Amino acid sequence: MRKNKLKAAYTEITAEAGIETALHGGRAKCLQRLIRLDMPVPRTLALSFDAVHEVAQGRPLDTRGMLAAFGDGPLVSVRPSSEDPDWGGPGAILNIGMNDARHAALSETIGAEAASALYVRFIQAYAVHVARLDSDGFGGGEAAPAEALPGLLETYQEETDEPFPQDPARQLADVLRAMARAWEGTSARLLRQARGAPADAGLGLVVQRMALGIGNGESGSGVIQFIDEQTGAHLIKGRYLSQSQGRDALIDRSKALFLTRDERGASMEEGCPDHFRALVGYGETCRTRLREEMQIEFTIEDGSLYILDAVRVQRSARAGVRVAVALAEDGIITRQEALMRVEPRALADLLHKQVDPDSPRDPILRGLAASPGAARGRVVFSAMAALASDARGEPCVLVRHETAPEDIRGMHAASAVLTERGGMSSHAAVIARGLGLPCIVGVSDMSLDVRDKRLSAPDGRIFCEGDMITIDGSSGEVLAGEAKLLEPALDGWFKKLLSWADTARDIGVRANADTPADARTARMFRSDGIGLCRTEHMFFEDDRLTVMREMIFADTSEDRAAALERLLPMQRTDFIELFEIMQGRPVCIRLFDPPLHEFLPHSREGMREIAAALDLPMSDVTRRVEALAEFNPMLGLRGVRLGITVPEIYDMQARAIFEATVAVGRQGTEVAPEIMIPLVSARREVELVKARVDAVASAVAAAEGAEFGYRLGVMVETPRAALRAGDISVNSAFLSFGTNDLTQMTYGLSRDDAGRFMNDYVNKEVYPEDPFHTLDVEGVGELLRIGAERGREKKADLILSICGEHGGTPESIRFCRSVGFDYVSCSPFRVPVARLAAARLAIADADGTGGEG
Amino acid sequence: MRKNKLKAAYTEITAEAGIETALHGGRAKCLQRLIRLDMPVPRTLALSFDAVHEVAQGRPLDTRGMLAAFGDGPLVSVRPSSEDPDWGGPGAILNIGMNDARHAALSETIGAEAASALYVRFIQAYAVHVARLDSDGFGGGEAAPAEALPGLLETYQEETDEPFPQDPARQLADVLRAMARAWEGTSARLLRQARGAPADAGLGLVVQRMALGIGNGESGSGVIQFIDEQTGAHLIKGRYLSQSQGRDALIDRSKALFLTRDERGASMEEGCPDHFRALVGYGETCRTRLREEMQIEFTIEDGSLYILDAVRVQRSARAGVRVAVALAEDGIITRQEALMRVEPRALADLLHKQVDPDSPRDPILRGLAASPGAARGRVVFSAMAALASDARGEPCVLVRHETAPEDIRGMHAASAVLTERGGMSSHAAVIARGLGLPCIVGVSDMSLDVRDKRLSAPDGRIFCEGDMITIDGSSGEVLAGEAKLLEPALDGWFKKLLSWADTARDIGVRANADTPADARTARMFRSDGIGLCRTEHMFFEDDRLTVMREMIFADTSEDRAAALERLLPMQRTDFIELFEIMQGRPVCIRLFDPPLHEFLPHSREGMREIAAALDLPMSDVTRRVEALAEFNPMLGLRGVRLGITVPEIYDMQARAIFEATVAVGRQGTEVAPEIMIPLVSARREVELVKARVDAVASAVAAAEGAEFGYRLGVMVETPRAALRAGDISVNSAFLSFGTNDLTQMTYGLSRDDAGRFMNDYVNKEVYPEDPFHTLDVEGVGELLRIGAERGREKKADLILSICGEHGGTPESIRFCRSVGFDYVSCSPFRVPVARLAAARLAIADADGTGGEG
Repeated sequence: MRKNKLKAAYTEITAEAGIETALHGGRAKCLQRLIRLDMPVPRTLALSFDAVHEVAQGRPLDTRGMLAAFGDGPLVSVRPSSEDPDWGGPGAILNIGMNDARHAALSETIGAEAASALYVRFIQAYAVHVARLDSDGFGGGEAAPAEALPGLLETYQEETDEPFPQDPARQLADVLRAMARAWEGTSARLLRQARGAPADAGLGLVVQRMALGIGNGESGSGVIQFIDEQTGAHLIKGRYLSQSQGRDALIDRSKALFLTRDERGASMEEGCPDHFRALVGYGETCRTRLREEMQIEFTIEDGSLYILDAVRVQRSARAGVRVAVALAEDGIITRQEALMRVEPRALADLLHKQVDPDSPRDPILRGLAASPGAARGRVVFSAMAALASDARGEPCVLVRHETAPEDIRGMHAASAVLTERGGMSSHAAVIARGLGLPCIVGVSDMSLDVRDKRLSAPDGRIFCEGDMITIDGSSGEVLAGEAKLLEPALDGWFKKLLSWADTARDIGVRANADTPADARTARMFRSDGIGLCRTEHMFFEDDRLTVMREMIFADTSEDRAAALERLLPMQRTDFIELFEIMQGRPVCIRLFDPPLHEFLPHSREGMREIAAALDLPMSDVTRRVEALAEFNPMLGLRGVRLGITVPEIYDMQARAIFEATVAVGRQGTEVAPEIMIPLVSARREVELVKARVDAVASAVAAAEGAEFGYRLGVMVETPRAALRAGDISVNSAFLSFGTNDLTQMTYGLSRDDAGRFMNDYVNKEVYPEDPFHTLDVEGVGELLRIGAERGREKKADLILSICGEHGGTPESIRFCRSVGFDYVSCSPFRVPVARLAAARLAIADADGTGGEG
Repeated sequence: MRKNKLKAAYTEITAEAGIETALHGGRAKCLQRLIRLDMPVPRTLALSFDAVHEVAQGRPLDTRGMLAAFGDGPLVSVRPSSEDPDWGGPGAILNIGMNDARHAALSETIGAEAASALYVRFIQAYAVHVARLDSDGFGGGEAAPAEALPGLLETYQEETDEPFPQDPARQLADVLRAMARAWEGTSARLLRQARGAPADAGLGLVVQRMALGIGNGESGSGVIQFIDEQTGAHLIKGRYLSQSQGRDALIDRSKALFLTRDERGASMEEGCPDHFRALVGYGETCRTRLREEMQIEFTIEDGSLYILDAVRVQRSARAGVRVAVALAEDGIITRQEALMRVEPRALADLLHKQVDPDSPRDPILRGLAASPGAARGRVVFSAMAALASDARGEPCVLVRHETAPEDIRGMHAASAVLTERGGMSSHAAVIARGLGLPCIVGVSDMSLDVRDKRLSAPDGRIFCEGDMITIDGSSGEVLAGEAKLLEPALDGWFKKLLSWADTARDIGVRANADTPADARTARMFRSDGIGLCRTEHMFFEDDRLTVMREMIFADTSEDRAAALERLLPMQRTDFIELFEIMQGRPVCIRLFDPPLHEFLPHSREGMREIAAALDLPMSDVTRRVEALAEFNPMLGLRGVRLGITVPEIYDMQARAIFEATVAVGRQGTEVAPEIMIPLVSARREVELVKARVDAVASAVAAAEGAEFGYRLGVMVETPRAALRAGDISVNSAFLSFGTNDLTQMTYGLSRDDAGRFMNDYVNKEVYPEDPFHTLDVEGVGELLRIGAERGREKKADLILSICGEHGGTPESIRFCRSVGFDYVSCSPFRVPVARLAAARLAIADADGTGGEG
């Protein structure tokens, strides 16, 4: 935090000077470090935050004295130096001190064209950024040629009614005041606050003697870095341009030289081998001593090399991982530091394909970025069409008003999902994240006509079935056509970083995995087990759905049992496969949860199919479908309520689980399944289910002549279950908080219906964040805390966890650690993020820094 | 609670004996009181609970010694004496000691027929209740004539292979053991536990010398009481039958005499004037000394009057009120005692018509008794038909699958409501209770075909539109045809009792009232104000509904404002009327709550009407109706979410409220309206609404040049609002807990969908009670407690209340008093119940008895 004590207006940056990032900004501090490392940095003065603030308020500065510090008639540059480079700031201004006299003098020494180039550059910058004249009259943002000088001076005089200022001291004072005021302007403040800057963030300025890249002998400027910013691979990258200033080498690439000698042509390595070697040495010094990959800005003035500046190389998430791991492997930073340098959320980008940031984009629609990654495909408007497209081997994007469980197979077949309605926790979003499919929801601008198979964008463009689009699930943008994609980056660096994370972290990370594919992903990402296996998806497969419907339509308990008897071997196979994949890691299976009507069709056509399949009169089918309909399915006859009302379903599932346990055990894999009861609100519900599950276990053990262990626990999804956790824990080995439903009930807010106003709510700051996206620590979190305390009070070894969609976010992991949870469970694609976040929290705690996870 | 110390096996009941209700039962204690009042009670022995328990275990008793206590060869009776007469118990057995020898001796003194009658009565009772023989062989439950004696003795010997027992001591021992064991049998235990008896409830027995009502001179038996058990009016009622025993006079009514002299014929008053006068005196003594209206069982033995027993007169709720008030007015009991003697729930019966319990019933269907009272009417299947029926002046019963807001006007027009679906807090139930309409919901046995206008009962009977049925909303039974009804009993006694209750109670009782009719009912029942006025019903009236729909379909904020501008005067009129009716008592108005789609039709026909009315293309209407549909409307875009997303609605309502306040103020009635924000889950929601409401208030005050006060508060319906009550109270003058929605969200259970399994759940004791019926103190109550504590911590003068359907129950009032609430609000018809319950709780607290409310 910056101190408020006023310092001397300016300080020369020397190895001994009292320069601090918190007082003078990062650039000033970095320049001091370079000086301490004996690099040839031109003389530089630093103005502190306080000094710059006073300048903005109108305090006069002794700029004549400052210029005197640089010796006789110098040219100087001014650059911003804020605490964090990400907060932005005014651009650098070069060649301050140029005037007619200096121009004349320099024309003598370096030639008229070079002198004019320096003057022109300064006039352009001064006119636009200091005098605030319209840039059109001063090159319109483009560098003007040397010949433009007289015209620019004339234009300046015309527009300001005075000649271009000739006094270098006034020039410098004007530049400093303009930059100071620009920083304090409203739009700059809002911009940097949006990037996380505090309201009182200060700006420092550095005034540096210009090393002139334009002039006699070998003169020029360039930029060098030692990694590829996309991959993090070690290589020398940059450009050098003779007779240029600043970063011109990067702008005027056609004339600039490559740095290293290779087949691309002339290079700096050949042209200036000594300077090149010196730069490589400086880069290495930066890496080992500044412990970071830096980009160095340098100038050669008449054969002498100067280092003007060095900044951290901006890099992709992927490069960030590699740089951090490489620095740790080279012993420059510790593994802990490496972990702390990678932002967990950035990992999400590595797990999925991404739209190439350097390729052109043609956005047509925008919605909520519900599941990250990018995919291209042909538009389809139904699950059936998605399956057909998949069968033809053509990637497709499933577009729906919203998705329902009936669409699951279509979602599996699609490359991405796009829905008009829904929020971050809508069916489409949840399932897509689970499947690792890019997904955009809540695209309310889209006009969708499913019957005529067309969607219209607000700009009037129409896309029909078969048209190609690209879904950018990381940004929430739908792009027309096939955008260029980058492949995911699950390389050795990534794996190494995460293995370090596993050593550091002190909370388990499991995956929510419903299918063998999910389970394989969970294994690939090295989750500690499955924290939530939802079993209902298993019943939507074609052959099972019909049996499910028979079960639902059964008139007698016997008929129901007969239908379930046919489902038993299928369920057993499901569990055997899951257990085999997870190789003895814990698998927590949630018993059947959804209302039965989810398995019934809503269209007349669908009902006719059922009537035919089950040989029932149509009137019978419609009557029963109507009878099962609910006003608020979310709050209806589902979960344990169904388990108690129709106990045969849970009996069958328990039997399948235990028989699978025995079968896999015989293959040599010890499995201790965990069985989780959903939607509990009262202790007695647990007692009743436990009695039946225990009975099934005994029966299976007796019939198979095998012994096995298992745990029975409760999914805490209702506020009441959290409040009564003391009661409920008596019969539970574990409590797992299902924060999706718990958030819905705590807020009284359906995730499927929240999409229509959530943006509005978050924009108006009614909610600080979408609570389906970021765990609401104050409300829902309070229930988790109450539940954890009351549960553990009654049962000290109660296993506690969270298995909602929030499970993988750094914020929720921080919270879960604070209340003593044993593990978090999240969608498989979030497992790496969670592993890293957990490690960072543990490291920060050990450091006592309370780091940000 | 009974003491476990074993007492002497039997005790003679004398004025001085140590007889206690908790040891010997109520009958033994009552007999002692009669003895202390010098009434001619035959000698009586009491067996304690412990003694009877030991007898059941097989402990032998000195019955020979007991009989000796009665002198030479007595006949005795045995009657049960439990702690509470409502717990049931074995029937009395008379004439123990009859045997062949005694028969012969009595034949000499009172004649052979009389002697045989005594013997026959004993043999019948002994054979069936002691020897446990099939009653068919012993008169099948009917009294046998004297001539049957030889046959009965023979049958007894045939069935038991032994002659009828002749030893009086053995007879008595057998009778005592049989009665003791009957009490301890499983079915008797379950029955009395169902009536509230503790598991270890004891049975005492009283053994009394028989006063023989059969014999020489004036002999006979009878029963007398001094009130009418239906009305509580003072009058002498009973029968006397010469040459009879026990309660024969009530059974053989054709031969029995009336007691008082009147036009009905011969009477005891004429036949035995001295005994009659004595009985009247005893009755008066009982009333003043036992402080209760007693029914006296008496016997005249050869001209002498004996009092055998006295029991509290069983009475209707209505009579109970009158008796309690009359006893207090006569100074026999205090007003507090009078209040404690009337069970609040019993009042509900007085407020509504009831099915005459003495008339025949023809039940066809059974469901949840959702709103008490009875009504008869013709079956109608739509709100339209109800309105038409009402217009013809024909009472009707509205039968629906379930009701929706569109049915409100039809419900107003109907005499009762019957729905196939729904629970105690379904729309139909809530509205019907509010309107005081009898209502039965969740009649899942009913097969309903609304299109063909017929409903079928499980027994196959079919009722078509126009057929007459009777709804008994107090029992949940639907009766065929027109059952006989009793009128409600809102008489002076009732009003007096409640005025005493108002003096005693220390918590406010307001009414939930949406309409002028509700408000009038609330005033009639003397509520302290309106605690919840839901405003949405106001928009369902025909002329307003169209404007509402225009508002919903408005494309621009201006069009929306224009539609609302037309609704404003209507709303203002609504509020003026309410304020006028409530005459300055507080009126708490809840801002608009339901999702907008509730105002749209779901049928194509309805949509076509809208398209025509609003001059929109049909496709536009269907698209918008679809766009507004929600998965879980309960948890969707409603309440304050709508208030924030479409703020014009709340603006209009606030303006209507304030303008009405000014208008009524000008008529001389000071109104301080309370404005309540529904469905709040975050503090910021309150801030945003408060800012706008305050602005509207300032604008109205300025425009009207008037000053007025108002309170703004929050309806706490989401668990989060309760958890964050500290935050929320900062901007709230009051918090009112809406326990309907709060229960739904705490349990994750929609009241509309719970009906399908709630019975099952309560029967299996998964939930001890339907939480929509009885406040769930452990879960929902915990949130109320947390909310109250956190709210008051931040704002000490925060007004706290409950306004859900639970508001009126004694349990919830107990809870609300315990957490310091200021008032409860309940449907108008529950106000009297709540007033009485509140008084009883205050009295019980003051007594330190912790009475049961």
